[in-house]
Amino acid sequence: MKSFKIALAQFSPFIGDLDSNVQKMIEQANEAKKQNAEIIVFPELSIVGYPAEDLFLRPSLAKRTAQAFEKLAAIKDIVLVFGFVNLTEDGQRYNAAAVMKDGQVLGIYNKQNLPNYSVFDEKRYFNEGHQHLVFEYLGHKFGVLICEDVWSLNTVQQLAQLNVESVLVLNASPYEVGKPQHRIVTLKELAKQLNLHLVYVNQVGGQDDLIFDGTSFVINQSGEVALQAPSFTEDLYFAEYQVENKSYQVVESAPALSTMAEIYQGLVLATRDYVQRSGFPGVILGLSGGIDSALTLAIAVDAIGADKVQAVMMPYTYTSQISVEDATEQAKRMGVTFGIAEIHPIVNSFMQTLYPFFGNSPADATEENLQARARGTLLMGLSNKFGNLVLSTGNKSELSVGYCTLYGDMVGGFAVLKDVYKTIVFELAKYRNSISETPVIPERVITRPPSAELRPDQKDQDSLPAYDILDGILYAYIEEEQSQEDIIAKGFEREVVEKVIRLVDRNEYKRRQGSIGPRISSRAFSRERRYPIVNGWKPGV
Amino acid sequence: MKSFKIALAQFSPFIGDLDSNVQKMIEQANEAKKQNAEIIVFPELSIVGYPAEDLFLRPSLAKRTAQAFEKLAAIKDIVLVFGFVNLTEDGQRYNAAAVMKDGQVLGIYNKQNLPNYSVFDEKRYFNEGHQHLVFEYLGHKFGVLICEDVWSLNTVQQLAQLNVESVLVLNASPYEVGKPQHRIVTLKELAKQLNLHLVYVNQVGGQDDLIFDGTSFVINQSGEVALQAPSFTEDLYFAEYQVENKSYQVVESAPALSTMAEIYQGLVLATRDYVQRSGFPGVILGLSGGIDSALTLAIAVDAIGADKVQAVMMPYTYTSQISVEDATEQAKRMGVTFGIAEIHPIVNSFMQTLYPFFGNSPADATEENLQARARGTLLMGLSNKFGNLVLSTGNKSELSVGYCTLYGDMVGGFAVLKDVYKTIVFELAKYRNSISETPVIPERVITRPPSAELRPDQKDQDSLPAYDILDGILYAYIEEEQSQEDIIAKGFEREVVEKVIRLVDRNEYKRRQGSIGPRISSRAFSRERRYPIVNGWKPGV
Repeated sequence: MKSFKIALAQFSPFIGDLDSNVQKMIEQANEAKKQNAEIIVFPELSIVGYPAEDLFLRPSLAKRTAQAFEKLAAIKDIVLVFGFVNLTEDGQRYNAAAVMKDGQVLGIYNKQNLPNYSVFDEKRYFNEGHQHLVFEYLGHKFGVLICEDVWSLNTVQQLAQLNVESVLVLNASPYEVGKPQHRIVTLKELAKQLNLHLVYVNQVGGQDDLIFDGTSFVINQSGEVALQAPSFTEDLYFAEYQVENKSYQVVESAPALSTMAEIYQGLVLATRDYVQRSGFPGVILGLSGGIDSALTLAIAVDAIGADKVQAVMMPYTYTSQISVEDATEQAKRMGVTFGIAEIHPIVNSFMQTLYPFFGNSPADATEENLQARARGTLLMGLSNKFGNLVLSTGNKSELSVGYCTLYGDMVGGFAVLKDVYKTIVFELAKYRNSISETPVIPERVITRPPSAELRPDQKDQDSLPAYDILDGILYAYIEEEQSQEDIIAKGFEREVVEKVIRLVDRNEYKRRQGSIGPRISSRAFSRERRYPIVNGWKPGV
Repeated sequence: MKSFKIALAQFSPFIGDLDSNVQKMIEQANEAKKQNAEIIVFPELSIVGYPAEDLFLRPSLAKRTAQAFEKLAAIKDIVLVFGFVNLTEDGQRYNAAAVMKDGQVLGIYNKQNLPNYSVFDEKRYFNEGHQHLVFEYLGHKFGVLICEDVWSLNTVQQLAQLNVESVLVLNASPYEVGKPQHRIVTLKELAKQLNLHLVYVNQVGGQDDLIFDGTSFVINQSGEVALQAPSFTEDLYFAEYQVENKSYQVVESAPALSTMAEIYQGLVLATRDYVQRSGFPGVILGLSGGIDSALTLAIAVDAIGADKVQAVMMPYTYTSQISVEDATEQAKRMGVTFGIAEIHPIVNSFMQTLYPFFGNSPADATEENLQARARGTLLMGLSNKFGNLVLSTGNKSELSVGYCTLYGDMVGGFAVLKDVYKTIVFELAKYRNSISETPVIPERVITRPPSAELRPDQKDQDSLPAYDILDGILYAYIEEEQSQEDIIAKGFEREVVEKVIRLVDRNEYKRRQGSIGPRISSRAFSRERRYPIVNGWKPGV
């Protein structure tokens, strides 16, 4: 044998639906056979999908997994390497990989390093494995690792000492900005250092708030990248090992993505998978003439098509004429269903009912919230009647400091920009405009000063610091976990820093009731940043 | 020395507020000294409180802990045993206990068994300890364990082999129905089996969705209960060891609580701590004339006093006269501020705005949701204007099957009955009426058939099975994790079971946006039952 071929199944499982996942695995295995692959490698936990959370604990998972094995056993003439939950007779539960050929299980590997930080909770579900798996096939010695394992130098060194040539790494590694490149850069060094070929297969697809980017790759023991699959795409990729050269043939890599392209494509994939896998016929969102809803609309259209997207403008006294114009124009450019619903009569009826209770209290945020809640209720009414999912349009900067109305602009099942700071929202809007002949977002939406338009002549910057300053403080506090004093020492004004941190801390209750949204940062709210609502921690030191 | 005295500090920390916690610990230590105690034992992680979640990871926690130690070091002439986060020089983080006397640390114990299931995530935060701590004092040999440790027979046996006489157990053990008694019954056996005295000190207080019941106790090595502190009360309790008898003197135990008394007191404590520690001046809730809001009102009044509670009745076309009468009567009996706000004009204004969009679509749940959302927005308006916290009044049965309106009756910061099934709501209402001379909840509220009153002559049982059947199925599916087929095999109708399970699975998105509420069951939503929103798991097997 001069060469052999490995298929990398950059696979998007439907969490918990073992039947459909196995069906797709069979189709991919058959396709791989057509292309003369000898081995096909699927991502971590491919049968059930990652992360299935407490579905991993369902008592019937063992039976369902056994049924999946039976179906996969019918595939002949190709080695399958796939992920599953391994429930052993002594009651242990492992995050495992099976090597199967012609219905025979040639080996099982139990993941040794279980991440239990950041977005990961694997110690809630799994026991640690303690043994390596090595198998010889086609005169080549393979090892198997699962995701976190490959980041433990100790674990990989042990495997290298077993004279393994190629390591098949099954992954469900969630996306964050820059991570696709980071993985490759780091593992190139590892391959060289330990003289191992790495075949890295990653899950792809959106799962609730997590995005899996795929970006599978093969690295030769020289550190050379032999194959790099595109990000955010489900497909089969093939690596051919040349026995004589002792290396995988180098094929053209997917072109590198700019940071904004990477984020944008990730958000599109997350939105598409959430909407489609939840079974919604389409989406609806409130279009305000501002940049957040404009960008959300563009992402929605790119995710599921203009014919499935409905936008509604809901003006009130403080809505400027240019907002109505720009929203109308954008809806037209994008070809979505568009309607206008005035909220004056609704806000007035609320005020009349509340008047006897309010007495002579001066106007404050209460009245602003009524506008936002009238809009939220209208969107939910349209959603209830026609079945479209409401997309929430708030961004991470707002959500961090609570500059948003619970049950108002926060309504919706999926908050597309939840983990995107406002400064990045601007960049993404410009990026999206740059990739189509005519800009989909009217220029004025990007250049005008941001405003919630809930008071006469209101600007965001009346209540908040400029967004570059706000985002700088938020990034230091949230992503970098710096203390108040550290952040002030970086040169931000004390008063501003204290205010921002106070707002972040105080608004945990609001975020807790917000919808989920795709994670692109290294510290997303909710799954990753877990704070008590009631707490007496004082910023300080 | 003929005897010595140990103070059990059944302590309610304010999570994350090390200053106030240490201040209270100092006061309690001084009080214990006054009562001639030689040792005072505080609960698990007493300095920072449990669970502080990602506050455990804040870089400045080390510095804050060091400051706390300095303050505690000033206490003389009593041994302090307390919990803290032990950050060691090699970067490990332990859930630890310190034994301190006159400013000297006599020993440190690192928790060996870290729970990472159910509501617990300790492996996210801590490393495992591997060593026992034994210290001799007053001629008596003490060991120290922390919470989960005492439930590991292996761990306790090892400690027993070190000839320990009394084990000081520091706990933050969350409440669930029956757990106070369960702990004592189980540990009596352990004490006898291993010939150990157990001094068990538990945290008390509400922390977000968790209730800590306290119910600290001392068990002699004979298995006899020497002391049992009341549940849900913060106080100091004293155990006196008689050297001659080699046992702790038996004192009168707190009277046992009925199940309903236990749950009721737990909900009252949780509500009080949430409201007060969040800094709200009071609460507001919608009173419908139904049993859920009636019980919530009673709990609110018992928690924070009638003068801090505001109730609003918000009738619509389908609200019956008896609902208005009963709500008015209950508000009067409880002495709370009460108002009536008609929602017709609001619902009408929504309908007029939506009419052009709806066209000839027949009426459905959309119109019902508008009523609920009009009410939710009114409550939030009153909350925003006057600062009172909105209490949500839904129960666990409703929330399980989604028989509630997101952004409607689900609005609020704290859902008092979130983990209480409807059948238990009835029991609790009867219990509450039984303990005051005149029943606080009008009899008719308890006896009339439950109705959401969102359609003419609507009854809950038009859409849902009878509550005893519904709750039976829900309990089997949620608490017992039984499969659909198992539940049908128990004798429930197939069609009903399939429908209920489908509803539970489909409504995860709704629950995820609901407010938190106190956990009383062994499987509460959100923190404990963690399911993906998007998933393709099919009930079946």
